[in-house]
Amino acid sequence: MPHVLGHNQYGKAETRVVRIYRDRDPHELVDYDVSVSLVGDFADVHVEGDNAACLTTDAMRNTVNAHAKEQGDAARQPESFGLALARHFVDDVPQVGRARVTIEAYPWVRLHHAGSPSPHAFARVGGQIRTASVTCGDGAAWVVSGLRDLVLLKTTDSEFRGFYRDRYTTLAPTTDRVMATSVTAQWWHSDPAVDWGGAHDAAHAALCDAFAGSYSRSLQQTLYEMGGALLDAVPSVAEVRLSLPNRHHLVVDLGPFGLDNPNEVFYASDRPYGLIEGTVRREGTGAPGPAFDPGLGW
Amino acid sequence: MPHVLGHNQYGKAETRVVRIYRDRDPHELVDYDVSVSLVGDFADVHVEGDNAACLTTDAMRNTVNAHAKEQGDAARQPESFGLALARHFVDDVPQVGRARVTIEAYPWVRLHHAGSPSPHAFARVGGQIRTASVTCGDGAAWVVSGLRDLVLLKTTDSEFRGFYRDRYTTLAPTTDRVMATSVTAQWWHSDPAVDWGGAHDAAHAALCDAFAGSYSRSLQQTLYEMGGALLDAVPSVAEVRLSLPNRHHLVVDLGPFGLDNPNEVFYASDRPYGLIEGTVRREGTGAPGPAFDPGLGW
Amino acid sequence: MPHVLGHNQYGKAETRVVRIYRDRDPHELVDYDVSVSLVGDFADVHVEGDNAACLTTDAMRNTVNAHAKEQGDAARQPESFGLALARHFVDDVPQVGRARVTIEAYPWVRLHHAGSPSPHAFARVGGQIRTASVTCGDGAAWVVSGLRDLVLLKTTDSEFRGFYRDRYTTLAPTTDRVMATSVTAQWWHSDPAVDWGGAHDAAHAALCDAFAGSYSRSLQQTLYEMGGALLDAVPSVAEVRLSLPNRHHLVVDLGPFGLDNPNEVFYASDRPYGLIEGTVRREGTGAPGPAFDPGLGW
Amino acid sequence: MPHVLGHNQYGKAETRVVRIYRDRDPHELVDYDVSVSLVGDFADVHVEGDNAACLTTDAMRNTVNAHAKEQGDAARQPESFGLALARHFVDDVPQVGRARVTIEAYPWVRLHHAGSPSPHAFARVGGQIRTASVTCGDGAAWVVSGLRDLVLLKTTDSEFRGFYRDRYTTLAPTTDRVMATSVTAQWWHSDPAVDWGGAHDAAHAALCDAFAGSYSRSLQQTLYEMGGALLDAVPSVAEVRLSLPNRHHLVVDLGPFGLDNPNEVFYASDRPYGLIEGTVRREGTGAPGPAFDPGLGW
Repeated sequence: MPHVLGHNQYGKAETRVVRIYRDRDPHELVDYDVSVSLVGDFADVHVEGDNAACLTTDAMRNTVNAHAKEQGDAARQPESFGLALARHFVDDVPQVGRARVTIEAYPWVRLHHAGSPSPHAFARVGGQIRTASVTCGDGAAWVVSGLRDLVLLKTTDSEFRGFYRDRYTTLAPTTDRVMATSVTAQWWHSDPAVDWGGAHDAAHAALCDAFAGSYSRSLQQTLYEMGGALLDAVPSVAEVRLSLPNRHHLVVDLGPFGLDNPNEVFYASDRPYGLIEGTVRREGTGAPGPAFDPGLGW
Repeated sequence: MPHVLGHNQYGKAETRVVRIYRDRDPHELVDYDVSVSLVGDFADVHVEGDNAACLTTDAMRNTVNAHAKEQGDAARQPESFGLALARHFVDDVPQVGRARVTIEAYPWVRLHHAGSPSPHAFARVGGQIRTASVTCGDGAAWVVSGLRDLVLLKTTDSEFRGFYRDRYTTLAPTTDRVMATSVTAQWWHSDPAVDWGGAHDAAHAALCDAFAGSYSRSLQQTLYEMGGALLDAVPSVAEVRLSLPNRHHLVVDLGPFGLDNPNEVFYASDRPYGLIEGTVRREGTGAPGPAFDPGLGW
Repeated sequence: MPHVLGHNQYGKAETRVVRIYRDRDPHELVDYDVSVSLVGDFADVHVEGDNAACLTTDAMRNTVNAHAKEQGDAARQPESFGLALARHFVDDVPQVGRARVTIEAYPWVRLHHAGSPSPHAFARVGGQIRTASVTCGDGAAWVVSGLRDLVLLKTTDSEFRGFYRDRYTTLAPTTDRVMATSVTAQWWHSDPAVDWGGAHDAAHAALCDAFAGSYSRSLQQTLYEMGGALLDAVPSVAEVRLSLPNRHHLVVDLGPFGLDNPNEVFYASDRPYGLIEGTVRREGTGAPGPAFDPGLGW
Repeated sequence: MPHVLGHNQYGKAETRVVRIYRDRDPHELVDYDVSVSLVGDFADVHVEGDNAACLTTDAMRNTVNAHAKEQGDAARQPESFGLALARHFVDDVPQVGRARVTIEAYPWVRLHHAGSPSPHAFARVGGQIRTASVTCGDGAAWVVSGLRDLVLLKTTDSEFRGFYRDRYTTLAPTTDRVMATSVTAQWWHSDPAVDWGGAHDAAHAALCDAFAGSYSRSLQQTLYEMGGALLDAVPSVAEVRLSLPNRHHLVVDLGPFGLDNPNEVFYASDRPYGLIEGTVRREGTGAPGPAFDPGLGW
């Protein structure tokens, strides 16, 4: 049987662009890793080797760099920068039907010198990375904000007991354990007319506050509380998706050395780890359409 | 507005299990990284903090280890091992509706000593990793085989010209370039009754042969030829998905040093890179159902 | 010719221990990755296969865990924890002549809930990691404190011109560039009786302040100023070693798109990168002995 | 007290250069990551901000690329390419006193098409990476060859018993275990006039053969046998240094599931791990001088 082309997409991944705003005092900057992916009428590129419709990925890189200049203040937030880029590809390149722009934004904080804020020196904030994923097509736009690598831990107020037991279950129930995770979160704004920076700060704060303040019967329950807290904090968000690896901290048996260990010394293990993933939605809102569609699914 | 739980899934990720077959001479081994993800009736775990339905991820880890023993020769191939595991979770744990088992298999080759094959010593083959993703539920099973990190390069027989030009296009057309990529491939078997090891070898050989033998007008065209070659080589496969980063090799300008450079010296760049992704399907076959469904989509 | 055993060392690397202080309110924690390396009379282990002198690396792991409990507040700082561990191996295991304990310490900050500091919830601070390397032997101890992955950038006040030119030099001089680096620093305390936490904060602040405040004619010059500032800020330090990769930010040519680019849009490149390494010493102090000795040198 | 500049070095790290030999049939290629580090009279660069003596790291990058063309067949082996580069910096740049060139070489194998070797298509061999470190200065040269990421495992013929016991020792002795490691090896040629490619193949084979063929009472003993075998196999080598992490494979207790586990199912753990490092020298040869000197020691 002959074969045929199915779904396809292509683009330029990981354009590392830094935009410095030098026309103000003090200087400001944004630091992005931008990936573009396009869907459209590209069958002949694959099947016939005919590149007439092929926008080069090199041009996409150029477009990202040029827009970092042209967009001015719209480049200050990954969501608005992604919207400008995605709309350009859909509006200005006829053979493009849908564009996805994903951005990782690396935060920086201002340094001090001799007790005063520096007008031009910064330190990169490690840890959580801010993300944005914007999809445009069919006259509409979907904006997903997010973060990843936000590592949280609580030393108590976490239990895990009353669980299902099968023949392979050996875990002992516990009424007090360390719970730790590295948060990946993505939230879809059903109304994109938002203050992106303020919304991100509110979402981040809600995730942390809910993790700190909730008593946990499972990481699943905490996930649900974190998602709900984000929905409460950011009105424009209709759906939040959380992926929470359970970073197991195992109590070390110090008995052989004549020592007790009342939840004081832990082994932070690497693998395997539980992986808890879930969605929390505002009741009554519609489906997110292609907002979270990963395309080819890997 | 109140919020509600949407799609959710959970499991144990990255159980690193090595199974040695010592009851034969010479010894053999398989080396796996196994991840389990379950979908089912887990709403109360999230919403009520009621763990009565929660199979612990620790039990999943135990299950993987026990099955490495119990399954015997069925554990010799990642696809058959994944099928056994996924069927267990769906068949034996009532609240599970669907199970996904993904496996990375690290290949090893036998060492030699004093000119003879060693009965028990091995070297790990770096480079490409074999993958399998098995989904069970609703009385059916979907098996996806694959590989990743297969790095290929050709020094000629690759051109890129005749492409679309917009105001951001500066790339010069070329009739001779280096083309390199790191292949991620996944292929769905519509008929799972296959010789998994033989099928994997045939798929791998077809991808390499097509890359080596085809004249390339674009990486997209080569993707399509590689996918078609795999379909031709493995009759059980109905659909193949390829993700091909374009590992750009840029000709270095040696003119300032009085040297010409007729495609001899290249800079292997890291970022950005083109990313070409596409599907090739056998005509007339059905949809892959949940075979490639990534769940929550990140 | 026959062969002989030369320098050798061994130990347990990367014991991941988390120590929680629950006997106070609020809770506190330290998060360490501890590596132990021992030098001593281990020739028979290698040459004869006689393990009578071989302290197992498993026992070293146990020792790290037990000391996390036994040392109490001495485990609160990586330097004092490393000193306790290194002294134990040298003092209590007769065949050990020298012990090196290296620690990576991952900082955490307290979370807030409902506007108040949480008594037990934390977020890991990404970015710079605090390090300590303690060597004991011959009745003496050498303490090296440090940090790595401190990423700094300044948008101006950096030039690079007047440099040497050979036939391979094509770089244009510049009077205004972005300078960025990821600081790895290690500093040797000639007097170990210090407030380790306070000294680390002072060192970190001095490095940042000097980077922010100094006008740079080269990354080498900035290295020298940063090292000097650290010596000025921490009296117990006799020598500081800095390894500074030059994270090149290249001005993007936007001319083809009709745009000027007055140092606003940059490409943050990955490889290659300049790597500037240097030592700044307090005049008149002695040699650091084995403080920085990497052992086998890789 | 004032401060002074101590040891310093600088250079261009990680120039990724691919050299294709197209003037023969079939094509051949080498794939290198080249780092240059120079020591010399650079005090004024640091202390005075005077760059008159500063060879730019950009020029070093250019030099690597130009030499990939100019050196012709001498670029075919990392050792001879490193020698040419290091000699250039010492001989042609007056202020340079010593140069170190380190190279990682990524091996590739030829692909086949339609049953025949391809004239121009290759697959990268994963796993072990070939390394070279060449130091020139004071009219002499030191060549160190090596490899890393060679992962080896044996399923039996390994014991560990009769070891020292202290109060922290809990490990049970074993007469049969899995032993696995990832080899990093470096060997110094006291006579550099060698067939670099042939010597590398012989060294690699000797390491593997000794691992496979020796009965192991400890990883230390196996290290010593591997080092000795390399010295026996490559006459030009005077000293070999091995760094062997013990990749622990822990027998999984399947008893709770009613299964025995006679060394068949293992957990491949990540951290912590034993780290065994040692030197084996040909008796009577001199010291390796700066061959292994890591410079600043981190």
